Amino acid sequence: MQDTPKFPLFILVRPQMGENIGAAARAMLNFGLDRLRLVNPRDGWPNPKAVAMASGAAGQVLDHAGVFADTGAAIADCDFVFATTARGRELTKPIYTPEAAMTEARTRIARGEKVAVLFGPERTGLENDDIVRANAIITVPVNPAFFSLNLAQAVLLTGYEFARQTMDVAPIDPGLAGGETASALEVEKLGDHYEERLQEVGFFFPEGKAPMMKRNLRNMWTRFGLTRADVQTLHGVLRKLTRVPR
Amino acid sequence: MQDTPKFPLFILVRPQMGENIGAAARAMLNFGLDRLRLVNPRDGWPNPKAVAMASGAAGQVLDHAGVFADTGAAIADCDFVFATTARGRELTKPIYTPEAAMTEARTRIARGEKVAVLFGPERTGLENDDIVRANAIITVPVNPAFFSLNLAQAVLLTGYEFARQTMDVAPIDPGLAGGETASALEVEKLGDHYEERLQEVGFFFPEGKAPMMKRNLRNMWTRFGLTRADVQTLHGVLRKLTRVPR
Repeated sequence: MQDTPKFPLFILVRPQMGENIGAAARAMLNFGLDRLRLVNPRDGWPNPKAVAMASGAAGQVLDHAGVFADTGAAIADCDFVFATTARGRELTKPIYTPEAAMTEARTRIARGEKVAVLFGPERTGLENDDIVRANAIITVPVNPAFFSLNLAQAVLLTGYEFARQTMDVAPIDPGLAGGETASALEVEKLGDHYEERLQEVGFFFPEGKAPMMKRNLRNMWTRFGLTRADVQTLHGVLRKLTRVPR
Repeated sequence: MQDTPKFPLFILVRPQMGENIGAAARAMLNFGLDRLRLVNPRDGWPNPKAVAMASGAAGQVLDHAGVFADTGAAIADCDFVFATTARGRELTKPIYTPEAAMTEARTRIARGEKVAVLFGPERTGLENDDIVRANAIITVPVNPAFFSLNLAQAVLLTGYEFARQTMDVAPIDPGLAGGETASALEVEKLGDHYEERLQEVGFFFPEGKAPMMKRNLRNMWTRFGLTRADVQTLHGVLRKLTRVPR
């Protein structure tokens, strides 16, 4: 017996092309989801084309995939099952966006439930007989005039949505890569440096406007979100410029 | 001159395979995004493989795609530019999740700004020379041990994220497809019907437990979220069952 995973199982129902099974495994693993089940894959199992497409860590997802004869057997141990479908409107089922569905999944998984998501065959999608076994439907709200999500893309969006919600909240003030932010003192000293040199060359003219000009300049430095490296660069620029004989 | 679009422009920088350009156009159009620009596509332009892959409405996205010699020219009229990259850590730029980036994009677009997102070539991704031209970086927070997003998938996730945020808020109480919810009165009458017939057959026994048994049964009907069709079905079931001679 495996532990109940902390994320949804993904179940590919009657997938056709091995390549698409491999691509689905890759799509899942991008978001750390590695529990895959297959219902009656058209070309049998194992499938060398699936393995070739998956490669590396995604190949291990395939190695551990459970294979089942029908949808009922694949979901037998699951507590809550979503069916992904663009249609299915003729059946009475709650319809979730991927966002609402993964919120529901998170809540149920936190409670210790095993949650699964069914994905249908490439051409036709899930049949009504599959959908009636599910507790709810997931429909990606796409452009009504143009729908074109392949199997791996449907898997990708669902996995992304689960990961997005379980990540730490996205920073409102996004982080900076590759540089440590300069301290307020460092920025102030940079402002001092520029102000002194510009004063020397008579930049702040006419005198009545000098306070406003200085304030604007100070404001600019703080607005830039300077890193320490930026501050060093700007000191260097100023030193170089003021060494040029006039 | 085209109007400023209400969504970000997507710019494919030096894309290699025509099929991937077509797949990117399809991915975008799923979410109603139809402004595409191309920087120096490897195999020239127009590209019949791109057209074959796109087909239909996505073909029109390609027909209207602007083609530019370099990244600078492609973004010249844009007010804010994101660069999608998994690397780029050596450059000092704000890094956004797709979620934070599309929130920023929405805010800027609402202000009337033109926002663009750069996507790099399939193999290598954007070069530093492209990234320095952008105002910020988008990095999809994937499994650190496994990263495998192709060009169309990166386009798809970014488009999805923009659409997700601009859609009406996902319903907390998800909608039902294919059925009108039964009124409280209809559910009550169904409860009456079952209670009467069960009373007749001596179901509520022993008498001391009858009130609790009846309450549990009533509670069950209201918990089910019955549709009108369900109520009709359940009346029919009961009628049929009670017609059987015992």
